Amino acid sequence: MKLARIKRKLIATGKKWVMICDVDGVLTDGTFSYTESGKFTKTFGPHDADALKLIKSEIEIVFISADKRGFGISQKRVQDMGFELELVSSQDRKKYISTVKTNKRVIFIGDSFTDELALCEADLSFTPANAHLIAKKASNYILKAKGGEGAVSEVCFLLNKYLKENSQL
Amino acid sequence: MKLARIKRKLIATGKKWVMICDVDGVLTDGTFSYTESGKFTKTFGPHDADALKLIKSEIEIVFISADKRGFGISQKRVQDMGFELELVSSQDRKKYISTVKTNKRVIFIGDSFTDELALCEADLSFTPANAHLIAKKASNYILKAKGGEGAVSEVCFLLNKYLKENSQL
Amino acid sequence: MKLARIKRKLIATGKKWVMICDVDGVLTDGTFSYTESGKFTKTFGPHDADALKLIKSEIEIVFISADKRGFGISQKRVQDMGFELELVSSQDRKKYISTVKTNKRVIFIGDSFTDELALCEADLSFTPANAHLIAKKASNYILKAKGGEGAVSEVCFLLNKYLKENSQL
Amino acid sequence: MKLARIKRKLIATGKKWVMICDVDGVLTDGTFSYTESGKFTKTFGPHDADALKLIKSEIEIVFISADKRGFGISQKRVQDMGFELELVSSQDRKKYISTVKTNKRVIFIGDSFTDELALCEADLSFTPANAHLIAKKASNYILKAKGGEGAVSEVCFLLNKYLKENSQL
Repeated sequence: MKLARIKRKLIATGKKWVMICDVDGVLTDGTFSYTESGKFTKTFGPHDADALKLIKSEIEIVFISADKRGFGISQKRVQDMGFELELVSSQDRKKYISTVKTNKRVIFIGDSFTDELALCEADLSFTPANAHLIAKKASNYILKAKGGEGAVSEVCFLLNKYLKENSQL
Repeated sequence: MKLARIKRKLIATGKKWVMICDVDGVLTDGTFSYTESGKFTKTFGPHDADALKLIKSEIEIVFISADKRGFGISQKRVQDMGFELELVSSQDRKKYISTVKTNKRVIFIGDSFTDELALCEADLSFTPANAHLIAKKASNYILKAKGGEGAVSEVCFLLNKYLKENSQL
Repeated sequence: MKLARIKRKLIATGKKWVMICDVDGVLTDGTFSYTESGKFTKTFGPHDADALKLIKSEIEIVFISADKRGFGISQKRVQDMGFELELVSSQDRKKYISTVKTNKRVIFIGDSFTDELALCEADLSFTPANAHLIAKKASNYILKAKGGEGAVSEVCFLLNKYLKENSQL
Repeated sequence: MKLARIKRKLIATGKKWVMICDVDGVLTDGTFSYTESGKFTKTFGPHDADALKLIKSEIEIVFISADKRGFGISQKRVQDMGFELELVSSQDRKKYISTVKTNKRVIFIGDSFTDELALCEADLSFTPANAHLIAKKASNYILKAKGGEGAVSEVCFLLNKYLKENSQL
């Protein structure tokens, strides 16, 4: 989808927008470390936390994760940024977005081949530069930034720019 | 080996296939962290665990590792994914595959120069994009993805596609 | 800004120079790891600590960070290198530099879009090769090295070279 | 230095060869993680430990490090590989190599600008692909592999090949 069309979508009057953001591979680079005791750390990157502040008064922001074992790690990071994390499995994501869509318009950022249907179901979908090919094909816009290297920040700047331009009309 | 030949091999009638998969450099990027107390973490990547689910009902999957010191780390990850890990040293790998071959056909994914003979012994062998040159030369197919960045996932998608195409004939 | 102009600025007589250096994304690659208990590690790179020794007798060096949760991690590293770390929030950085400028000339190295005003306020500003585009546009010179991969070292070598050339005149 | 000249040097009769190998940036990628309590982990890569086994019966191998704070981490890894680690500061390296040279011929692998004199003092010197420019200029041969990504392995394969070729003459 061309940026101009994304802009038209965003500024079209209608229901409120909510941004649903996957954690692994979007807010992180998709890697995670293991010790002998199990999943231990995930690695987050620069710019995303600061950029989310630019849009959070305009757009509702929700994080979701399908990673049960690493849920505590992801939750701690998401809560430290001031947001909530919900456990939504791969197979439940399309339905989850569909339900949210009953009274909101949904932006979804995902990176996995298991996100294919969810990316199609969203009103507007983004995928990081290093996402799985199937996710890229299913999304409206492939970001220049990789997951954990500014992918979320890139979406925030895009949304912030268009929403600001619109409020100045 | 061309993909067409890999496909013909896979769908040829005969013994059941088993996929034997190395851990370090295949399921991980080959790096590992040390503290003063010794080997501490290994780093795993996205897509592999989900992609293994696509083929596990069709193809038996076994993980092997020659890393004694990091065995507990690798084992924890492999078991969390629902599979078993066996300790098979570099020098024993060719014989290990040879034994498995008596009643199964073997797919082997390895990345080290010490995997040379094992890669040749397997019926079908893959090596990640960042494997050692000697491993690349010994394998049937060099993957586009690096170890820990979707190498195992790439094999799973390939196998899944060919097996599905075949079952539809 | 061309290197020749940076040199002229540096060797022009006047107030003493102080180098104010951001930590995350400059001394690190911008990433940080989380466990379930919160921010856990930051990753630092080669050359920077050794290169700072080349200029510390000539130029005062101060590190600043806006990262409250990771302040203890950054502080430990900065103190281990023999320097002090101050907590200066994004919105306070322009004023902080402005105050220091009353009796010193300020070199600032920053990488975030939130550093835009601070980079403009400094007498001389640098940004790592992988900094946010807004930071790059606001800085006088974009370094060849990335944060955590020699960015600070590159500045030190540049400053050391010009100051040495000047003292030999 | 051309590979042919390196080969001639290696196979020329004379004193026994010893390989002195730096740890940070050579056996690792140069990065290290910090917690609030200080230096915590270093990251090592594939192939090096296995490749050292190829030459250790022919060439004496010693590891050195100038990193006091991370000495315990490096020592644990080096000892796990079956070698010894010595603490040799940057300024003492040239003299250290000079002393060893009285009755051995020295191969040195280093990556830092502080290794400049040591790289020149060695009979044969290598530097990883991502070493500091000053180290690259001072070394006889710039490796294709980066530190922690097979740099030491590359040297081992080179030495092993030439020594084997020579023993077959």
